[in-house]
Amino acid sequence: MEHMKSLFEPESVAVIGASTSFGKWGYIIPHNILRGGFKGKLILVNPKGGTLHGLPLYRTLEEAGGKVDLAVIALPAGQVEGVLEDCARAGVRVVIPIAGGFSEASLAGAELEARMARKARDLGMRVVGPNTMGIFSGPASLCALMPPVRPRPGHIAFAAQSGNLGTQMLGWGAYRGVGFSRFVCVGNQADLDFLDYLDYFAEDSATDVILLYVEGFRRPRETMEVVRRVSLRKPVVVYKAGGTKAGGRAAASHSAALAGSEEVFRGVARQSGMILAETTEEMLDFSDALVKLPLPKGRRVAILTWGGGWGVVTADLCERNGLEVVPLPEEVRCGLDEILPPYWSRGNPVDLVGLFDLQAHGQCLELVASSPAFDMVIALGSVNAGGAFSIQDDGSGVEQRRKWVREQAESFRRRVVELVEMTGKPIITVGMPQREEELFGDGLVERLCLYTSPERAVKVAAMLAARSEELEKRMVHEGMREGIP
Amino acid sequence: MEHMKSLFEPESVAVIGASTSFGKWGYIIPHNILRGGFKGKLILVNPKGGTLHGLPLYRTLEEAGGKVDLAVIALPAGQVEGVLEDCARAGVRVVIPIAGGFSEASLAGAELEARMARKARDLGMRVVGPNTMGIFSGPASLCALMPPVRPRPGHIAFAAQSGNLGTQMLGWGAYRGVGFSRFVCVGNQADLDFLDYLDYFAEDSATDVILLYVEGFRRPRETMEVVRRVSLRKPVVVYKAGGTKAGGRAAASHSAALAGSEEVFRGVARQSGMILAETTEEMLDFSDALVKLPLPKGRRVAILTWGGGWGVVTADLCERNGLEVVPLPEEVRCGLDEILPPYWSRGNPVDLVGLFDLQAHGQCLELVASSPAFDMVIALGSVNAGGAFSIQDDGSGVEQRRKWVREQAESFRRRVVELVEMTGKPIITVGMPQREEELFGDGLVERLCLYTSPERAVKVAAMLAARSEELEKRMVHEGMREGIP
Repeated sequence: MEHMKSLFEPESVAVIGASTSFGKWGYIIPHNILRGGFKGKLILVNPKGGTLHGLPLYRTLEEAGGKVDLAVIALPAGQVEGVLEDCARAGVRVVIPIAGGFSEASLAGAELEARMARKARDLGMRVVGPNTMGIFSGPASLCALMPPVRPRPGHIAFAAQSGNLGTQMLGWGAYRGVGFSRFVCVGNQADLDFLDYLDYFAEDSATDVILLYVEGFRRPRETMEVVRRVSLRKPVVVYKAGGTKAGGRAAASHSAALAGSEEVFRGVARQSGMILAETTEEMLDFSDALVKLPLPKGRRVAILTWGGGWGVVTADLCERNGLEVVPLPEEVRCGLDEILPPYWSRGNPVDLVGLFDLQAHGQCLELVASSPAFDMVIALGSVNAGGAFSIQDDGSGVEQRRKWVREQAESFRRRVVELVEMTGKPIITVGMPQREEELFGDGLVERLCLYTSPERAVKVAAMLAARSEELEKRMVHEGMREGIP
Repeated sequence: MEHMKSLFEPESVAVIGASTSFGKWGYIIPHNILRGGFKGKLILVNPKGGTLHGLPLYRTLEEAGGKVDLAVIALPAGQVEGVLEDCARAGVRVVIPIAGGFSEASLAGAELEARMARKARDLGMRVVGPNTMGIFSGPASLCALMPPVRPRPGHIAFAAQSGNLGTQMLGWGAYRGVGFSRFVCVGNQADLDFLDYLDYFAEDSATDVILLYVEGFRRPRETMEVVRRVSLRKPVVVYKAGGTKAGGRAAASHSAALAGSEEVFRGVARQSGMILAETTEEMLDFSDALVKLPLPKGRRVAILTWGGGWGVVTADLCERNGLEVVPLPEEVRCGLDEILPPYWSRGNPVDLVGLFDLQAHGQCLELVASSPAFDMVIALGSVNAGGAFSIQDDGSGVEQRRKWVREQAESFRRRVVELVEMTGKPIITVGMPQREEELFGDGLVERLCLYTSPERAVKVAAMLAARSEELEKRMVHEGMREGIP
């Protein structure tokens, strides 16, 4: 645990192999750490000396002096072993060798990796990777990553067995309001592995939800046991790759992982309380919803739609995913009668077609969300209904109209967030994709669950319902009531 | 057919019920027609007279004088019948009553609708809708639609039983380079129905692919027969909604459709050669790919990836979707040895990790695409690999570097388009979502198939392979060789 603290909350970080050549890892990583606003001390080491990004380049760690917690080693595979003793002398607790060319590449690489990891352990240090793109820590503002991504701080801890996929998820998250507490690219797991990260995330107060992109676990049985325990308190979302023959071959040469069969994994995963993401998109969709939304008490969904067709599609999707599109109770119908035009559909989905006033959308939403007949709400189209006006004009007063539209949309989004809090029920919004930029344009997205297709929204709703039932069942079966959200 | 020509290639269009009130249909539709650059004559009718958008408002069609081909009727349901005789006198061949409040709303509405449609037919006119958002015709630059969408002209003809969903697809298409020849919101199908539109699209030289969003066919058996015939020449992509109980109820109140059971539909659809879109996204993904890409001769896929994890994920997806991730032949491996660093994975997927030079990506792509060992290629990440540099800088020469990155990316995209032509094989590209705006920023997207997740790319690849096999099989079975692409 103390090693983990040095990894995710270091007071000082060294980059060994810092380089003045633009485009090299040794150039990019210090750049990203500085731009990320790291609060601790950054020490750059290069035997040639000089300066980089306005900081001195020390010839050795010793020359820099002072204690170092974490060392990022941006040197080729063959040179990593050679700097471990320097690291240990400086008090380093964790090293992150970035380079590939270890066990994922060849037998010789595997030997090199084993020797390097053993040596680090003998010196009292732990190893992330090798063959990794680095780590991110929100609370420490530490962005020790290779790609130029700026993750959004938040409450998801993410361990990924692919740097490229992992960091692109961070980037996509930043764009759409999905924030992370911690990120680690586990690489070849020569020493620290999924189980170690999982243990830390479980106890980490900055983390509410745990996300794993896994090609192969090094200690599958123990990991599943820990997941089973942890998942009672914190949801563990997993995307499992490499389960097919073609995927397994690819995983072996990518992260030296033994992926194992898909069927076996699914069976074990279900028993452990894991939440399986079936698509790459669902990794973020599920984790984000579990951070932002309460769990529903049942499977009864109210659908609000700003277009009849989307309502039909969504009703189909709900039924196929085991959700119940139950009828509107009398009092909700009467309430809606007061707001909607006389020819409204009078059923669930509630078709708001023709209604341009987003305040009225908010009133309808409040009516259905407050009704004891429903456990959750999916609201289609309203979040970007305002957009329909934004290019309607006769050349006069355009700016004023746009401002009004923006304000309407923002006030609707605020209403959604308020109603989630007020009712304790999940409200999931869907806005159509061509206006993505607009939708993601304000700060509320950090508290709003917004998807660009009804498919994604319904999958999230079904996942939340399943999670709720699973917890309920386990509380009864395992007689555990403490510590459960 | 002549009626259909008046609908999609009219020389003159009237909007009856044109209005000076901002936000009313009678205001918006003429605005959209004018902004769309309609090449024919536009006549606006309002009993009060005056002007709108710089055009005179005639009190009656008669006052305007001259022959009119198509009349959009922006009046409440109860007033439509009253203007039909005026329309017929002006030579109108097709009317489009926009209003709802007909058979989708009530029994009285159903009677009104039947009477209105009968009267129009008696006067020699055909009816689109009612309860419709209008039509679009690319070749005529006619955008007679309610929402402020600007469709991109192209080769997909789209008939949708939902105006909202349909026009939002047009908008999304415009944003991501998916173009349309024709669009019609079929509404309640009081007169013209899916079968009529299908017949026209089949013979329409501007149309290569037909797309339908269907809640219920009015003449299912005949429609399926026509689809079976048409689909030998032009692919027919269908999203069928309302097949569940919840969806069926919603469809009844939305478009007065009898949706029928999901299972029955699927069985019949398969026999007819229909291509079923399983998600709303696939409506555009499939139609677009069928316009832009050749069909593969088999199921063997080469995967190029700019990140190992994405390669593993995509290999899994290919295998699950019946595609074959076959090994690299010796000569391709040797060719790649010359381009890639010594530690490259030497397998399929080909991992380009570490390679920043997009010209080299292009060379790798050419090697695999030209090899007889592969029927198609999925290229992950390269289309936006350049983006990785775009924010890497030390403050000097940033603009120059950005320009270089842009040029690299554009030249890679151009290479993809060239290689599709050169090899006659589909090449499908995937770029990660947070850079969507960038990806869709140049004209090449009109000839490039680009998706934001591997899931979408693989579904498209599998669909193309299935379409190819289906055509092959039918050519043999039905002994037909003529007119087949």
